[in-house]
This record gives sequence, structure tokens and C-alpha cells, in this order.
Amino acid sequence: MTRVEVPPDSLFGPDNLPYGVYVPRGTDHRTGARVCTRLGDHIIDLSVALNDPDFASRDLNTFLARGPRRWREVREQLRELVDRDIHVEAIHRPAEVELLLPVRIADYVDFYASIDHATNLGRLFRPDSEPLLPNWRHLPVGYHGRSGTVVVSGTDIVRPRGQRRTDSGAPDFGPSRRLDIEAELGFVIGVGSELGTSIDTAEFADHVFGVALVNDWSARDIQAWEYQPLGPFLGKSFATSLAGWVTPLAALDSARVPLPDQVPEPLPYLRESEKWGLDIELTVRWNGQVVSHPPYSRMYWSPAQMLAHLTANGAATRTGDLYASGTISGPAPDQRGSFIELSWGGSEPVTLDGDTRTFLEDGDEVVITASAPGPGRRRIGLGEVRGRIRPVHESR
Amino acid sequence: MTRVEVPPDSLFGPDNLPYGVYVPRGTDHRTGARVCTRLGDHIIDLSVALNDPDFASRDLNTFLARGPRRWREVREQLRELVDRDIHVEAIHRPAEVELLLPVRIADYVDFYASIDHATNLGRLFRPDSEPLLPNWRHLPVGYHGRSGTVVVSGTDIVRPRGQRRTDSGAPDFGPSRRLDIEAELGFVIGVGSELGTSIDTAEFADHVFGVALVNDWSARDIQAWEYQPLGPFLGKSFATSLAGWVTPLAALDSARVPLPDQVPEPLPYLRESEKWGLDIELTVRWNGQVVSHPPYSRMYWSPAQMLAHLTANGAATRTGDLYASGTISGPAPDQRGSFIELSWGGSEPVTLDGDTRTFLEDGDEVVITASAPGPGRRRIGLGEVRGRIRPVHESR
Repeated sequence: MTRVEVPPDSLFGPDNLPYGVYVPRGTDHRTGARVCTRLGDHIIDLSVALNDPDFASRDLNTFLARGPRRWREVREQLRELVDRDIHVEAIHRPAEVELLLPVRIADYVDFYASIDHATNLGRLFRPDSEPLLPNWRHLPVGYHGRSGTVVVSGTDIVRPRGQRRTDSGAPDFGPSRRLDIEAELGFVIGVGSELGTSIDTAEFADHVFGVALVNDWSARDIQAWEYQPLGPFLGKSFATSLAGWVTPLAALDSARVPLPDQVPEPLPYLRESEKWGLDIELTVRWNGQVVSHPPYSRMYWSPAQMLAHLTANGAATRTGDLYASGTISGPAPDQRGSFIELSWGGSEPVTLDGDTRTFLEDGDEVVITASAPGPGRRRIGLGEVRGRIRPVHESR
Repeated sequence: MTRVEVPPDSLFGPDNLPYGVYVPRGTDHRTGARVCTRLGDHIIDLSVALNDPDFASRDLNTFLARGPRRWREVREQLRELVDRDIHVEAIHRPAEVELLLPVRIADYVDFYASIDHATNLGRLFRPDSEPLLPNWRHLPVGYHGRSGTVVVSGTDIVRPRGQRRTDSGAPDFGPSRRLDIEAELGFVIGVGSELGTSIDTAEFADHVFGVALVNDWSARDIQAWEYQPLGPFLGKSFATSLAGWVTPLAALDSARVPLPDQVPEPLPYLRESEKWGLDIELTVRWNGQVVSHPPYSRMYWSPAQMLAHLTANGAATRTGDLYASGTISGPAPDQRGSFIELSWGGSEPVTLDGDTRTFLEDGDEVVITASAPGPGRRRIGLGEVRGRIRPVHESR
């Protein structure tokens, strides 16, 4: 038994306690995976430390389905770990383990909830019209993505191929030339809801367990040609990266902030007694260089509004559903959460150390990190979502 | 032991042998479900008749994942059942059982592969422009739907609520007034494919197990307001009905027909040595009255082209993935597979016995059936997909 020292400025202090799934490096993913938390610079195996069979699992889904009361109980148990001795077999160094996809994803929905992002994309794609479409201020626009291609942070991203519009009017087919990121925040549903019912904004915390960083990789050339009239398909479905850590809502109490003004007032089913957002600041690094600080606090639609809208038609939800915010962009140029915005459609290259970029090149690596205010002056880390671009196999 | 008599004109003769999942009425779905086939007027429990643990399951997924060689072996075993005595405990009458969702759905994709449907909708929604958008003849347009709301035939459909555009320009919120069907054919993936790889048109049969009827319920008013720019969302996600029977491709050998001409010739990744479609004729009944006979043989994009496109960007597929064709419409008015086409946007009501309809009213029932040519003069039945509209609960 031993005690884990937590540096006072750690982003993974006793107020954070996120959940992940790990295997010791070299262990079989199917049999060796266990639920863990991170405390300071250590990974703590919860199946050993808490001796709870729900955590001898390769995903969080069993625990998520238990519901808010159990989530609170376990969080209390985790907080007690900080001050007591832990079995040495439960403790690992981050370098010794591999984090796996923490959640078995059921349905994946992606929203478009940043007014700055939607305005920027409207200006880029439809320069002669109003940048926001008529529905945008009335509902959180969203669509379904491909849950089977949600991958954990660290997974290489193979450059997608697809149809691209050419000057002749006919398309050609080849590797995307406008490969982009979207820095987003994802919300993980713990407790689902029945078909034919809706989740009121006040019921948000009965269903949503926590948040995780998302990079919704996007091939802008494929997307631009395909997306009318049924929306993005192959321009998005090749991969979506999810952070290895799911931060419970309970760790984000100090990060709650009032939502920016909504004009016009949304319809009643989207109203909240207190509309709240989250003061989470993201950092985007492109080949190691910081290129953006997207502020989640600027998002137009709230987490509870997105879920109320998703279920307003009676759609069921399930444990493991993931819905993401859409690209997080603030009003300033260095707050943009996609490269199509940062390079203004490719017309204003971004300068990296001794190099310039518009879209992603093979070998490029993007790392998105984030943190939020915790109690006192401490901060809560959300970990990272990391991915490197691999060239498409010519032979496949 | 007893022998099952099969009427010579049965749609479920020895050349069909579809797969479903059933429980005896009143039995617990979680413990009592078993895989079955249908032979004439009998349901045959395959976990008993073949004594195979893969079939002591509440879904087909374990069997589907075994792959084409095993699919052929089991089909041979099923054909032998016809001529021998079967354990009486394996035999049930259809009225004594309940069919469950046959497949645990992974990802659900919906295409838009009928040129007559796409042309009709283009004329209705954009009367002043070319009905087909520029990309339509170059790629099978598609999008992801909500897999968690795919329900088995017979499940009641609660009328969805949502935002509807009003004359003032602002939306209101309430039950859909333009609730519609889409008569479709779904393709079930048995063997998935790895992330970063594509499925060539020639590899179709290595991955796709079979087909099932689909009704992709659609709220046209919700859809029309929400769908720009990211495609259909709540107008579709409230429910998609799937038939209880999955017909293996092997039963449809006699239904293969050449694909209608494609102009222009598709890009190389969409080419096939012999482009084939399926001569499946659907019948749509609205409150018991036949209103349409959509012909699958008229579909523009082939089953293999849709799958090649879905994976062209390297998207992975999984056992249980479902992709549907989109609404099946032929060129004649009585071949239209949706009510928005049959009633021409609501302007030409459909006459039912002593009644008229444009869109679905509470209590209405829609039944879609289908059959295809089998060996000789026999026909192969695809079963049915049935649903009745229930009013929205005002109190929810």
C-alpha cells in the first residue's frame, strides 16, 4: 500500500477525478482493460482500488447506466482515495499504460452551436447572403455522425479519399486536399430515455454524465461537393477523435457560467430557469505550436438545450450516446476552432515555426487540450485529444 | 418429431428461408429470444432445430459476424429441414410468437438512390430550378440516421413534435402536420471492414448478409425547417421501422436484374463488372388499401455502389450496420414510395375507402410488403414492415 502524491498545481487534482479505460502497454485490449481515474501523475485502476466489478470493464457503459446517485457515491469514494493508502497494484505511470476509447458509443450527434463558427462558415461559403440561415437562432442545428468511427485520442488518422469538385463541373476522386479539424466538446449520456418521450432542460443532470474533448476531423473538399441536400456524410465519417478522459459534470461546478444572450428568446421547450454554459478554455496545437484558444463559454446553445432539442421529437437516448457541440470558435481570430476559419478558407496561411499551413499535410499532428476553473484557484484538466495524419494507402 | 407442410404457393417456401428473432408471446425478451426462420405458415426455432448456440440469441449479430462460408453452410442445413422431421418444440405458429428487432443495429445510413424520388422531391421543393442537384448523378447521396430509434415492424409510432415554419417567418412548436412514410429496402452488413480501408464493389458479398424492408418515417414540416445546412435530423430521428425478417442475399439470386443506365458513367471506384439491381416489388397499404407499388428494379444506384461509396473515405463498417436505399419510387404515379409524392406535396389528396388523405392521421396504419422472383415460378416474400400512428402525449 502506498500514498499518491498530488502536485498542488496538477490539472488532475482531487477536484477532477475523471474516468478512463486503460490497459497496461502490451496487454490484450479485450481481457486486460479496466476503468481508471487519474490523480496527479498517476493512473489509478478502479477495479483494484475500489474493488468494484463495474470497473473490471473495457468501457464505462455499465457504470454510466447506474445513474446519478451511484455516480455521486463513487465520486465520494474517489475523493477518499486521495488521503489514504492505495494498493500498489492499482497505481500506474501514464507512460506505462494505453488509454482506450472510454465509452462504447451508441449514437453520435454533432451540433453547430457556436454563433461565431456558424457566422464564419456562412461568410466563407455564402459570401453574398446573410451568414446565418433563418433557422439558426431558433434551434440548435445538428446531424447524426458515424459512431463506428469514433476513435480514442492518439489514433492515427488516414487521410480520406473522396469526390472533389473540379473546374470542369464534374468531380474527380482522390485524397482530400482540404483536411481540417473541429475543436469540440462532447457530452456523454449515462442514463437513456424512452422512445416517445423528451428530456426537459431541467432533467439534464439525470441523463448526462460528463464531457470529453472531441476533434471532428473534416474533409472540406469532400464535404462541399456532397452535402446538398442531406448534409455532411463522407466528409466527416472517416474519423472522429475522442479524448481518453471523461470528466464528470460534478467536477465542473465551478466552471458554470451564464449563457451569452439568446435573441430571440427560444421556444418554451428550449427554455431554462437559469441558462448556463461552461467556462472551458481549449488550446489547439498544430505540430506543437499553439494556434488557437477556443472559448467554450461563448457557445450560443447550452448543453441542456442541445439535449432537449435532440429529444423534442420523442427520439430515445441510450447509455453511451455522445453529442458534441460543433466547432468552438470565439469572436477573435485566435479563438477559431477550425483551420478553414484560421486560414480563412485557405486564403490566409497560418505561420508555424518556419513553415506555413492552410489545411493538414501528411505527418501533421494536432493536439487539443482544455482546462476549466475548479474550486479555489485550482484548474481542472480535460486531458487531450491528439491525432496525426497518415497518408492514404495508394494500394488499398 | 413432425414434418412441416409448405403450401406450394407460399412466399416462405424452401427457397426463401429468412432469419428473424422471436419470443413466444408473453415471454421475457431478454431471456426468451431465439433466432428463427419461417417455413410456410410456421416459425422454426433454429436454436432447437439446428441445436446451434449461435441461435440462442436475441439478435442475429453473432451469426452475421461468422461470414459468408458459415452463412452458406447454415442455409444448406435449413434447406434440409424441409424434407425431414423437426422437433415439435422448434415449431410455432406465427400468431403465437412476437418478432423482435432481428439485428442489433450499429450504424444506420440512409441513401437517396431513386432518381424518380429525387426528381419528384426536387420539383416539389425547388420548382424553379433543375430538380436534381449537380452531385446527384455522380455519387449516391446519403446521410447517417439514428440507430437507437430503429424499431421492429409492429411498433406504434408516436407522432413527433417539433419546430414548424409559420407564415410569420418564426417557427412554432407542436405535433407534425405532415407525417409521411418512406418505403425503402435496407441492407444488413454481416462482416465489417477496418478503419482506413474501403469495400470494393466486387467485395459486396463478402460483407453484406441480406436485406430487410424499411419504413423511414419522416415529418416533412420539421424536416423542411431544420435541414439547412446539415441535413435531416429530428424530422427523421423519431423512428425508423425495420421488418422482422432479414432475407439472405442467397435467396435473391433469381431477383438480380441489370441496373438501369447510369449517365454519366460513374467514377472508377463506383464501377462494377456487371452492375446489378434487384427485381423486388413493394406494395404500400394505407389503412388496408393499396396505394402504391414501388419497384426496386428502377433504383439508380446499385447496392454494391452504395457500400463502395459509404467506405470510399476509409470509414469502418461493423456487424449490424444497416444502410437503406432511400425512398423507392418508380416513374408512374402509382409507384411512388412516399405520401408527399403520392399527394404531390399535399395538393392532390389520396382517396382511401370513403376517405381522403394527404399525410398521416392519428390511428392510421401503414403496411409495406414486398416479394421477388424465386426459382421457377415461385416468389420470395420479404415479410412486412407495419406501423400505426399514435397521438403525441400532451402531458409528456
